Amino acid sequence: MILSALLTSAGINTAVCVACFSLYSVLRKQPSLLNVYFGQKLSHVPLKCNDPFCFERFVPSPSWILKAWETSDEEMNAVGGLDALVFDRTMVFSIRIFSIAAIVCLFLVLPLNYFGQEVKHTLTPGESLEIFTIENVKEGSKWLWAHCLALYIITCSTCTLLYFEYKYITSMRLAYIRSSISNPSYFTVLVRGVPWSEEEAYSEMVAKFFTNYYASSYLSHQIVYRSGVVQKLVTDAEKVYRMLKPGQNGSSLLRCGICGGKSASFKILSSDTEVDKERRDLNGPNLRDQECAAALVFFRTRYAALVASQGIKSPNPMLWVTDLAPEPRDMYWSNICVPYRLLWIRKIIILMASIFFVAFFLVPVSLTQGLVHLDKLQHTFPFLRGALKRKFIIQLVTGYLPSVVLILFSYMVPPIMMLFSTMEGSISRSGRKKSACIKILYFMVWNVFFAQTISGSVIDGWSAIDQLGKNLKDFPNLLARAVPSTATFFITFVLWNKDESTYGTMTFPYHTEFPRVLLLSLLGYTCSILAPLILPPLLVYFFLAYIVYRNQILNVYVTKYQTGGRYWIIVHKATMFSVVLTQIIALGVFGLKKSTVATGFTIPLIICTLLFNEYCRQRFHPVFRNNPAQVLVEMDRMDEQNGRMKEIYQKVTSAYCQFRRTSLTLGNPVPLNPNEKNMLQELEDDVNPAALRPDQLPGSWNEHTQLEIEEELPNK
Amino acid sequence: MILSALLTSAGINTAVCVACFSLYSVLRKQPSLLNVYFGQKLSHVPLKCNDPFCFERFVPSPSWILKAWETSDEEMNAVGGLDALVFDRTMVFSIRIFSIAAIVCLFLVLPLNYFGQEVKHTLTPGESLEIFTIENVKEGSKWLWAHCLALYIITCSTCTLLYFEYKYITSMRLAYIRSSISNPSYFTVLVRGVPWSEEEAYSEMVAKFFTNYYASSYLSHQIVYRSGVVQKLVTDAEKVYRMLKPGQNGSSLLRCGICGGKSASFKILSSDTEVDKERRDLNGPNLRDQECAAALVFFRTRYAALVASQGIKSPNPMLWVTDLAPEPRDMYWSNICVPYRLLWIRKIIILMASIFFVAFFLVPVSLTQGLVHLDKLQHTFPFLRGALKRKFIIQLVTGYLPSVVLILFSYMVPPIMMLFSTMEGSISRSGRKKSACIKILYFMVWNVFFAQTISGSVIDGWSAIDQLGKNLKDFPNLLARAVPSTATFFITFVLWNKDESTYGTMTFPYHTEFPRVLLLSLLGYTCSILAPLILPPLLVYFFLAYIVYRNQILNVYVTKYQTGGRYWIIVHKATMFSVVLTQIIALGVFGLKKSTVATGFTIPLIICTLLFNEYCRQRFHPVFRNNPAQVLVEMDRMDEQNGRMKEIYQKVTSAYCQFRRTSLTLGNPVPLNPNEKNMLQELEDDVNPAALRPDQLPGSWNEHTQLEIEEELPNK
Repeated sequence: MILSALLTSAGINTAVCVACFSLYSVLRKQPSLLNVYFGQKLSHVPLKCNDPFCFERFVPSPSWILKAWETSDEEMNAVGGLDALVFDRTMVFSIRIFSIAAIVCLFLVLPLNYFGQEVKHTLTPGESLEIFTIENVKEGSKWLWAHCLALYIITCSTCTLLYFEYKYITSMRLAYIRSSISNPSYFTVLVRGVPWSEEEAYSEMVAKFFTNYYASSYLSHQIVYRSGVVQKLVTDAEKVYRMLKPGQNGSSLLRCGICGGKSASFKILSSDTEVDKERRDLNGPNLRDQECAAALVFFRTRYAALVASQGIKSPNPMLWVTDLAPEPRDMYWSNICVPYRLLWIRKIIILMASIFFVAFFLVPVSLTQGLVHLDKLQHTFPFLRGALKRKFIIQLVTGYLPSVVLILFSYMVPPIMMLFSTMEGSISRSGRKKSACIKILYFMVWNVFFAQTISGSVIDGWSAIDQLGKNLKDFPNLLARAVPSTATFFITFVLWNKDESTYGTMTFPYHTEFPRVLLLSLLGYTCSILAPLILPPLLVYFFLAYIVYRNQILNVYVTKYQTGGRYWIIVHKATMFSVVLTQIIALGVFGLKKSTVATGFTIPLIICTLLFNEYCRQRFHPVFRNNPAQVLVEMDRMDEQNGRMKEIYQKVTSAYCQFRRTSLTLGNPVPLNPNEKNMLQELEDDVNPAALRPDQLPGSWNEHTQLEIEEELPNK
Repeated sequence: MILSALLTSAGINTAVCVACFSLYSVLRKQPSLLNVYFGQKLSHVPLKCNDPFCFERFVPSPSWILKAWETSDEEMNAVGGLDALVFDRTMVFSIRIFSIAAIVCLFLVLPLNYFGQEVKHTLTPGESLEIFTIENVKEGSKWLWAHCLALYIITCSTCTLLYFEYKYITSMRLAYIRSSISNPSYFTVLVRGVPWSEEEAYSEMVAKFFTNYYASSYLSHQIVYRSGVVQKLVTDAEKVYRMLKPGQNGSSLLRCGICGGKSASFKILSSDTEVDKERRDLNGPNLRDQECAAALVFFRTRYAALVASQGIKSPNPMLWVTDLAPEPRDMYWSNICVPYRLLWIRKIIILMASIFFVAFFLVPVSLTQGLVHLDKLQHTFPFLRGALKRKFIIQLVTGYLPSVVLILFSYMVPPIMMLFSTMEGSISRSGRKKSACIKILYFMVWNVFFAQTISGSVIDGWSAIDQLGKNLKDFPNLLARAVPSTATFFITFVLWNKDESTYGTMTFPYHTEFPRVLLLSLLGYTCSILAPLILPPLLVYFFLAYIVYRNQILNVYVTKYQTGGRYWIIVHKATMFSVVLTQIIALGVFGLKKSTVATGFTIPLIICTLLFNEYCRQRFHPVFRNNPAQVLVEMDRMDEQNGRMKEIYQKVTSAYCQFRRTSLTLGNPVPLNPNEKNMLQELEDDVNPAALRPDQLPGSWNEHTQLEIEEELPNK
């Protein structure tokens, strides 16, 4: 790739980016789009929309950028929850570390690369980008200590910054635990694998077991009912209807489409009283058939619930399996009914499917990469030479198309990974999203980073992949040879990604955004000392993304559930992986360039980095897995002293309502209420976060009236 | 290797074996050796030794074999504990599975191998052993379905037997938990990482923390004191003395050697009253300096202790780290004082050291293997041809020497691995032994099995190792080619190992014996369908070992501590590994022999085996990690109903006595008492289990007077 191709790509991207920002600045002022761009705000205070035709509406203004910039961590935490804060801190961390890296590499490494070999530098647009990379440094050059020093500086600043971020986020997580006083999930344990008995219903079994073994702390329990079959019918019916009548609102289906007066029809229970009536109706011999072998058990104190959730209960570890329950709106009800004894098979199958999926994606990715190496393709297929003669086409193809293909393909990944995570049997929505996040991250690191690198070197010379198989110890060497030559491709990739415009989604798509940011940071790390030119566009990307994401979190997305900062574990691991990979690649490059000093100094650096990682795992990680007993006991005591316990018990035992959303029963058709509509849409939200549905209003929530507000908003 | 060499080896081994058994039968009747051969018995009932010169004493008799054979599982469990039972069941399992394998392979597979190619069979002693292996089957042979069928039969019977064994041992473990009513460790939690404070001693910190957060269940606590420095002085002094005066009893050292009347001398506190006095003496400002940041905390119920041992206590996970305490005589006191925050570094260093050690051993092992391939060595080094011309020498060298060298080298491994496990920081002796067992198993599987196989093929043709590096998918193929050719070596190895004569050790050396048995079973599995001739000698080995080990457990070894059956996890994993490795090797062989049917049928078999393994892990494994809450609650209730609790509390709080064994202080020299002698010897017991010390009597123990009996026995 040559300099002018990069500049063309950069020009297009900057133009697209400025246009997007201006367009957004105007569109966000249009009253008709308020519900799209201010979902988060609307949910708290309905905005007034007077004076609809003033001039100001059509002038782009940067006020929203300033607002997003000025928001404090506390505000972020209050609006978006701890996960949003973690995302925000990840961006801040990336900006900080790559600023340091950019300063070090641009002023120390880049000149050494550029003047590494005695070539006449033309500085014309036609000059190849390769001369800015470490490839240009002579073998056995004495100046490689500078690269090694840069590596040391980057590693040390990463570890220092990461340590303080980890400490800060751990303290924020503890604050989050301490502050969520009325969180019912701390009092609740989800029991699965309730043993089946001929004589007694599951509900009686649960009551008996917990009154027997947890007599002093057991409060009450709530059995989980099977509603999956009915739910599935609704979802399927909606899908069929959509296919038949595209363009219409899916919610009208049940009224007119399939069930209008027919025998197989649905009745939606809209109010709590109806649900209770329905439950009483079921309260015959049929009730037992609807019970799952799972229950929510409520305890008198948070500490008692924590204790009950740990360890094994029964001599048969497949029975009475306990976990701390997710928060009420975080519950993924349909997965809870999956028999616990089948869960491990599901997990294995999904693991295999994920691996297969990741492997299958190698094919289109290598085709993409092939387009970048246009000149090499022309050598292989001479008939292409005619079509690709024009300079403009070549620049367009080499600078732009590979990224487009790559991004188009990558759009398929999140829904599929989300589906996998759903089938895996996660009990919470946040857990499902986190699992999808990890899968997508693996996918991206493997397919975008490694496969690009390796397939790139395939076209460079088919011997490279052969050599990879030949000896594993050559791997860093291979990567070291391949990364600098592919760095130019990645620079374009970074530029393209600046255009960030997935507005209008309901919950923040952490499962796609974390992997995206972490992948770019992986690219930044690995290329930093090898091809420092990647750092300025990367920093620009991170700055823009910082503003855009903050604005999105503050104004657009609604926080329905959160993991309580558990995404940081992923961020930390991915960052450590990036750093160590960078060091290994550097080790290989130093070896190739025959610099024994640099090689010798890199090995202890790798060891120290791994030790630092292990230290963080020991020091901070357990807080993200378990809630500390001390904190919960203190919270319990405070509540007891304040006499709040009675009130909390009432809240807790009524917080989990499985049927409010999904209570469907066969019967006479009634009009679908907005509640149901929301449910159907929500089912898809998580699967396809990029889908924009203007007919749907994001809702707010407070402790009690979780979904009711969502029902009322559209009528305003 | 040729048939006659194998027969020579078999002949020598049989003779050695018969001689050993006869010698043992006579020696065990000699009164002077009673304490060597009947340590276990002696500890319960002192045997009478009248009529010292009857004729019967000098006639070998098989009565002990019968006795060992007839002992029931319950007796084994009562005498040797659950670990002995697990070892016994491992032998039974091995005998069963290899009987099945032998029947299937000798009658189905062996004839097919033998008549696989149209060669004139001579059946003379000079015939090569290779014609009995799968190497002799023609490429593309239709008879390979028989090998595949044999593989199916072996896998299915393994899984079935393993499932029932696992179930049985799990039930025995539950029975063990239920039966150990007065086990103080269930009431005790070991706390490490007590935070340091300027104002308060560790003891006060512990009392404050547990009265605050565990007020209802906290009983008392006992701080752990630092005694390591004094202990180390004693051990070092003893070592110096041994070097100076070999042949003398090490225990006389302190009386006469270094400390006789000098200023740097030792005083041994022999009685409890003296210890208490000593403690009171220390009770000044010095006491605090001697405290470790660790304590034993006693709880009112077993369940409360279990609860306190789970999860994290403090927001800083490096503080207040809790584990269920080991049994009093299982405590490894000196490791408990290691600061918890340094433990992870130790573990990492030991892990690295172990890996390095395993890698370093490859060199002598490949030299050993080189001797087996004598004819090939002769080609490489022609000057050897003269010395190795005689047939007898060749047979001796190829049949015997490799095993001797291998076994001599392997004697160095257990002490080193035990040292590693000690430095790792295990809090219990049983845990240390189990950790050493795992290390030795890895060592053996890698060095004896894989390295032998691979270095064998190096001498067969240097291209093989090159090929291994070249492509990982070739690995099964390589192994498949190498294993049959090395099987003849392993057959000799099995024959040699029949001679089992490590009598006289104190505690059963599970850490060396489990890996030995599991390695042989790995050889049995991998060679079963490839070279079925290995199975008869292997079966003979297992039968003899079964008798010998049972006799040893019943008569010789003393059970001082146990893991409660946790060794079974190792056995299960190793067996599953063996089975899957066998399947992968078979897959490679079928591929090489171009049998698509057999290859196609082997792949689902591997998947099913892995699924079975995962099922067992889900179903049984948690019971070996955690004690089920239900069981402990029931035990607590029973005790409360019987009014035994007060009595138990007294027992529990006085059970852990750190200073009874090791309370040494600088002062006037007094004669060393037997207690101290035992301590010194015990320190070495675990490190060098094969060392035979006739001057030392194994002791017995019951609930109360743990070590007192050991002190009294020598005076009898």
